[in-house]
Amino acid sequence: MKILLIIADGLGDRPLKEFEGKTSLEAARKPNLNTLAIEGMVGLIDPIQPGIIPGSDTSHLNYLGYDPFKYYTGRGPFEAMGTGLTLKGGDVAFRANFATVDSNGVVKDRRAGRIREGTSDLAKHLNMKIEDVDVLFKEGTEHRAALVLRGEGITTDVSDNDPHAEDLKPRDIVPTSERGAKTARILNEFYRRSLAILRDEPVNKKRRAEGLNEANAILYRGGGQVPNLPNFNQKYNLTGGYIAGVALVSGICRLVGLKDFTPPGVTGSTDTNVKKKFSAAVSAMNEVDFVLVNLKGTDIAGHDGNGIAKKEFIEKIDEAMGDTIMKIRDDTVICFTGDHSTPASAKEHTSDPVPILIRYPGCRRDGVGVFDEIKAVDGYLRLRGADLMNVLLSSANRAEKYGA
Amino acid sequence: MKILLIIADGLGDRPLKEFEGKTSLEAARKPNLNTLAIEGMVGLIDPIQPGIIPGSDTSHLNYLGYDPFKYYTGRGPFEAMGTGLTLKGGDVAFRANFATVDSNGVVKDRRAGRIREGTSDLAKHLNMKIEDVDVLFKEGTEHRAALVLRGEGITTDVSDNDPHAEDLKPRDIVPTSERGAKTARILNEFYRRSLAILRDEPVNKKRRAEGLNEANAILYRGGGQVPNLPNFNQKYNLTGGYIAGVALVSGICRLVGLKDFTPPGVTGSTDTNVKKKFSAAVSAMNEVDFVLVNLKGTDIAGHDGNGIAKKEFIEKIDEAMGDTIMKIRDDTVICFTGDHSTPASAKEHTSDPVPILIRYPGCRRDGVGVFDEIKAVDGYLRLRGADLMNVLLSSANRAEKYGA
Repeated sequence: MKILLIIADGLGDRPLKEFEGKTSLEAARKPNLNTLAIEGMVGLIDPIQPGIIPGSDTSHLNYLGYDPFKYYTGRGPFEAMGTGLTLKGGDVAFRANFATVDSNGVVKDRRAGRIREGTSDLAKHLNMKIEDVDVLFKEGTEHRAALVLRGEGITTDVSDNDPHAEDLKPRDIVPTSERGAKTARILNEFYRRSLAILRDEPVNKKRRAEGLNEANAILYRGGGQVPNLPNFNQKYNLTGGYIAGVALVSGICRLVGLKDFTPPGVTGSTDTNVKKKFSAAVSAMNEVDFVLVNLKGTDIAGHDGNGIAKKEFIEKIDEAMGDTIMKIRDDTVICFTGDHSTPASAKEHTSDPVPILIRYPGCRRDGVGVFDEIKAVDGYLRLRGADLMNVLLSSANRAEKYGA
Repeated sequence: MKILLIIADGLGDRPLKEFEGKTSLEAARKPNLNTLAIEGMVGLIDPIQPGIIPGSDTSHLNYLGYDPFKYYTGRGPFEAMGTGLTLKGGDVAFRANFATVDSNGVVKDRRAGRIREGTSDLAKHLNMKIEDVDVLFKEGTEHRAALVLRGEGITTDVSDNDPHAEDLKPRDIVPTSERGAKTARILNEFYRRSLAILRDEPVNKKRRAEGLNEANAILYRGGGQVPNLPNFNQKYNLTGGYIAGVALVSGICRLVGLKDFTPPGVTGSTDTNVKKKFSAAVSAMNEVDFVLVNLKGTDIAGHDGNGIAKKEFIEKIDEAMGDTIMKIRDDTVICFTGDHSTPASAKEHTSDPVPILIRYPGCRRDGVGVFDEIKAVDGYLRLRGADLMNVLLSSANRAEKYGA
């Protein structure tokens, strides 16, 4: 049997005033999810472990069977993937800022006036080759960006240049061990060149004219090496694909070797075309054995503190399942869950366990028959994220017996 | 208090058509098990961990407190025990086949025509002493057998001779490290002698006359060293015994030092005399503190896809409890569970968690009052196999406080 893993990002919720103490999932109209619950089993999953607040990166890694305590090397690589950069194992990625320095090279504004306009033009011109090293640079939101070095002998053994305060010069870029010598040399050269490039950019000329702080220097920090993750297909003897509108998740999926089936035009927000994603998932399952679908809207609405938008996005998901997911359920292991909780009342990720639903032909039925955080307590499943792939593989008759 | 652990092998089931969506355990008439549930607590146990499909060997090891990830050295030793051989820590056991070689020593049939008759005669004559090493050989089902070497300096650092294909000569038996030299020498000598012995066996003369492929050579593979398991009695300061009709389970029990109380005449199938086993268990508890009873019939019926036979065997168990187990419940911790699920709809082991029941005088009562896979979700217990001995020991007031 094939396996479909649908992750409604940040799905878990807490009681909300707007629903008289119900969660957005409890309040939502969700006949298809409830049908799957009737035909299968529900429960709760701790994406990492109880009390650990998951990020989408650590949680997706763990769900896919890559222990984040082993493979997660810090935010740098994963934030870089969040900008949409395609990284490779061994790359070293830093979080970067566009900043403003004065003519003496002193940092006057670490965020370049929280610049919003034109950063993609600036970033484009900061991609370059230095010696045999590829320097990748990609803008993020506002002044934020990612700086990635790819090449032989690149390490994280190098100091940050971000002084973390204003009216100081950027820190000297020096190796912190012998292994960092080359990386420091590349970064110094990058800093030198970037000052020259940024000075002459039209975006900065315009800001100068308007009296805004120029984005005329790059500060970086928090380098991390992109982990070499064992290939998913080989690890599980399973061909895999994904559909995701959000760069951080698609970055992780690509990194483990899942094939991209994301249809054009979908987004990582509440306005996305869920039905288009589900149709793409159904098609993808003709080609591969495992498909992960990430739907980010639930998380966005949670971060916005908008319980009503969260409920409505859940209803949109449920409706989109009707002509797509529900049609393939007789030869598919279907798992529906979230990667963490983003309660609209908290506006942040929390460690609350996340409701999970698993349904496959002939599976045990726990009789709960409703899918939400509260009824899930009466359900069959009580999992940790690291169990998930094992449970899905064995549900699909794709696991080996351990023993005789 | 004393502890009685009853393991209905492969107990867990899935919804079955023949019972209108009920499992065999749900469908079974089981007044005694339900009485214990009323007086105690029920729940679910993952024999290894969620999503891992247990073998009977890995599961029994884990239940008895021997981490299979540490002690399980592969199937060789445990399959050898499954033939009924009594192994010792340090023995090296291989899976073996009776095979057919031609006059040039080329393998013509890796399975000797799937020979069924006479293998026990052949095996008997393949037990021998070579140098100071005992060679044990025991037939299994059809062409399958176990080859065990016992003696100083025997290791697994030796190549297999099984070419895994026909029209090839058996592979050379060579050491794979310096430590394997003696083992390779013994196995080469065994192969040489076995050819001579098998050639002249009446079983083979008969097969030759009948035009059947002779069982005239031994191919072996998958060597594993029998783990040195800490003695159960010392580990828990508890005298222990077992009752089991199936060789794999009795092999493990003997290996950890449990005493055999299996009465003569019982079997490891649905036709076994359950009441005789339970009577023997009650008697054994006069002598030892802990008794494990394995009842294999549930697993056999599951593998056969026979839900009705599985239900009937459960009813046979329940009935046999009446005059035996139920009489000792006021001074015994009684635990009833399975070592894994073998749903009649799957005909194989699955990773579905297994219902468990624990009852002892004065214990908490969870009010579920029924013993089956589905109601178990509402019960008190949610365990992993590695927890079981701790729970049973503390239930019996035999555990030390951890701390002050």
